[in-house]
Amino acid sequence: MAAINSNFLKLKAGYLFPEIARRVQAYSAAQPALAARIIRCGIGDVTEPLPPAVISALHAGVDEMANRETFKGYGPEQGYEFLRQAIVDHQFAGLGITADEVFISDGSKCDTGNILDIFGAGNIIAITDPVYPVYVDTNVMAGNTGEPATNGTYAGLLYLDCNASNNFVAAVPTHKADLIYLCFPNNPTGAVATRPQLEAWVQYAKANDAIILFDAAYEAFIQDPAIPHSIFEIDGARDCAIEFRSFSKNGGFTGVRCAYVVMPKTVTGTAADGSRVPLYQLWSRRHSTKFNGASYPVQKAAAAIFSTQGQQQVATLIAHYMGNAQLLRAAATTAGLAVFGGENAPYVWAACPPGLSSWDMFDKMLNEAQVVITPGSGFGAAGEGYFRISAFNSRANVEEVCHRLTALLTHRTPPAA
Amino acid sequence: MAAINSNFLKLKAGYLFPEIARRVQAYSAAQPALAARIIRCGIGDVTEPLPPAVISALHAGVDEMANRETFKGYGPEQGYEFLRQAIVDHQFAGLGITADEVFISDGSKCDTGNILDIFGAGNIIAITDPVYPVYVDTNVMAGNTGEPATNGTYAGLLYLDCNASNNFVAAVPTHKADLIYLCFPNNPTGAVATRPQLEAWVQYAKANDAIILFDAAYEAFIQDPAIPHSIFEIDGARDCAIEFRSFSKNGGFTGVRCAYVVMPKTVTGTAADGSRVPLYQLWSRRHSTKFNGASYPVQKAAAAIFSTQGQQQVATLIAHYMGNAQLLRAAATTAGLAVFGGENAPYVWAACPPGLSSWDMFDKMLNEAQVVITPGSGFGAAGEGYFRISAFNSRANVEEVCHRLTALLTHRTPPAA
Repeated sequence: MAAINSNFLKLKAGYLFPEIARRVQAYSAAQPALAARIIRCGIGDVTEPLPPAVISALHAGVDEMANRETFKGYGPEQGYEFLRQAIVDHQFAGLGITADEVFISDGSKCDTGNILDIFGAGNIIAITDPVYPVYVDTNVMAGNTGEPATNGTYAGLLYLDCNASNNFVAAVPTHKADLIYLCFPNNPTGAVATRPQLEAWVQYAKANDAIILFDAAYEAFIQDPAIPHSIFEIDGARDCAIEFRSFSKNGGFTGVRCAYVVMPKTVTGTAADGSRVPLYQLWSRRHSTKFNGASYPVQKAAAAIFSTQGQQQVATLIAHYMGNAQLLRAAATTAGLAVFGGENAPYVWAACPPGLSSWDMFDKMLNEAQVVITPGSGFGAAGEGYFRISAFNSRANVEEVCHRLTALLTHRTPPAA
Repeated sequence: MAAINSNFLKLKAGYLFPEIARRVQAYSAAQPALAARIIRCGIGDVTEPLPPAVISALHAGVDEMANRETFKGYGPEQGYEFLRQAIVDHQFAGLGITADEVFISDGSKCDTGNILDIFGAGNIIAITDPVYPVYVDTNVMAGNTGEPATNGTYAGLLYLDCNASNNFVAAVPTHKADLIYLCFPNNPTGAVATRPQLEAWVQYAKANDAIILFDAAYEAFIQDPAIPHSIFEIDGARDCAIEFRSFSKNGGFTGVRCAYVVMPKTVTGTAADGSRVPLYQLWSRRHSTKFNGASYPVQKAAAAIFSTQGQQQVATLIAHYMGNAQLLRAAATTAGLAVFGGENAPYVWAACPPGLSSWDMFDKMLNEAQVVITPGSGFGAAGEGYFRISAFNSRANVEEVCHRLTALLTHRTPPAA
């Protein structure tokens, strides 16, 4: 008989976003007249077309594939040097990162899941709560947890509660952890960590011989010049941190697929025999054995983001989404909600009206305003009582969402169907 | 301290192809005058441009990404229905496979590695020898093996020797196995399995409650109409087999990246509590949690392979490469070598001249003929004494390789530098 990985059976029914899709579909089927009115601010997916510089580069890359002389077969598993160097020059200048420490992939979801391949059993895993569900679920699959409790938390994980009192930035724990997932700007709360806060984390990691898995997928949305974009802006991080970056949200690559991991050669872990092993060596082996490089035209397109035109066009996109975030923040505030995030991140995180759970609020918004949000509890037990509104949308849609939200919560006459 | 996955330390120095690249680079540096003469028939990478139908579809897909109305963000993790349905209609018609049993990915290397995520510990893993190294290395990483022996075999794996006496098709073992990797047409030997041979494997799997992991990446190269293209042509396979397919070698997508897994809903494994669990449920969860869909323009391009024009253009590509294989077979035979494969696969598998090991032959071909081949021992202990020549090249290069090979081995004056 073939034994399955029984850890999968510990997972709750479904990944958050499929469950949202299911409810939206059920509502649309039950209320066909209202289905066309639905505006989706749930999943954090970009809506605006790719920047022209990216489109040009994609076409050029495709054209190269049409001629024998310029055709590209298997590329380097780690990614083309032209892209890795452009990343270092534009994103990590002066931070001591070299192009051979950058590993190109087809997405941060893959990277943040796959990274567990290189770690062993028995690590204490610290996860902020609420959190991007992939961190939790991939640890469950890898056998790093026990069974789930009724509130959705898994035995064996060290949850770091984020709440209004700490402004959704967890303090370093008093307990010891071995692996720490941090995501700033945060998905789902939109919180950012200050330099002193990140310094405290790096100090904690070094003192506890821990590794920080730093997800910076949303760094492009930072508006405040005092907020670090990379963990490698912090002294000592090269010894204890791995960073995840993506082209999904800055360049709009959610459907194009390109991301990368920055893995300094100086980060080490401990083998069963007690020896120290560079994680770089393991990740490099994993990457070349279980991955075959990202699509060539896509890598070429990603590099175009760093052209002068590309940078300007991405700045315009970011300004668009951050303008949306500002409107959503204002509307939620006007509606009387306690509001977080949305100032350096494309997510607005709001407390549900009194008496409503996260899924209550989801259902209310869907049923009464035809707006899809994300229930906070989908991101963890500490997310209960909150909901996330994504700023990824057209301006017209966002203005309409603002109108419906305030109408719904200030008990004015609901807008006509 | 962060514990690493110490299983990685059991892995031999490097994955085969990076080692080949290293030797070629060293030779080029040492012999700059001869470097330009090098012809690569090592890695099985396509050389001809993408078919025009694929190029058109890629451009069209990119254009869709340039407009808000047609822009695609995150797609379904499992892949777009238009591609999954086209696959079923063109590749699995009449075999009882449905579109929701197809999972689109960015490559078979990923799929054949990632599949181990859904299996537990303690399975007996059967692997043919020689074999595509990814199957072995990913099992080592997953902790399914012990330490390597000096000949490169790993304790705990059930090796099924393939050799001239069984025409490089392993018979079903007398031992019990739980997971069985089969690859037909075979990489590296070019061997194919007949219908009765596959029937024997399916019977074995059902009798032993085992799962067949069937890699059919090279099915498009089958010329003999009696040879099955899919394991699902065999009765009962829907209960015990998973199939891996790719667009890399038929459509030339090695640099574009698209592949898929066919996972029937009827295949089950056994959980720790003894219950039977559909593998589909686990793979679907893995796919939606650790993967975010393949690139949209790429999926659109993959679907174009199934258009009438696409099919004709792929047939032309296949005919080109198989013409190469025929020339290489003839040349190796003329050179006095025992030759296998190359009739239903783009790989010619030849015995080394007496007294030469696989790496001896690799070095001889590189140093004396400036031709890069793949040493058979790189694919496993049973590959020692053989080498693989890839038919993926231009006709002119293949003709030159044939010329150099026969000159080298028939002791005629080597061609001038």
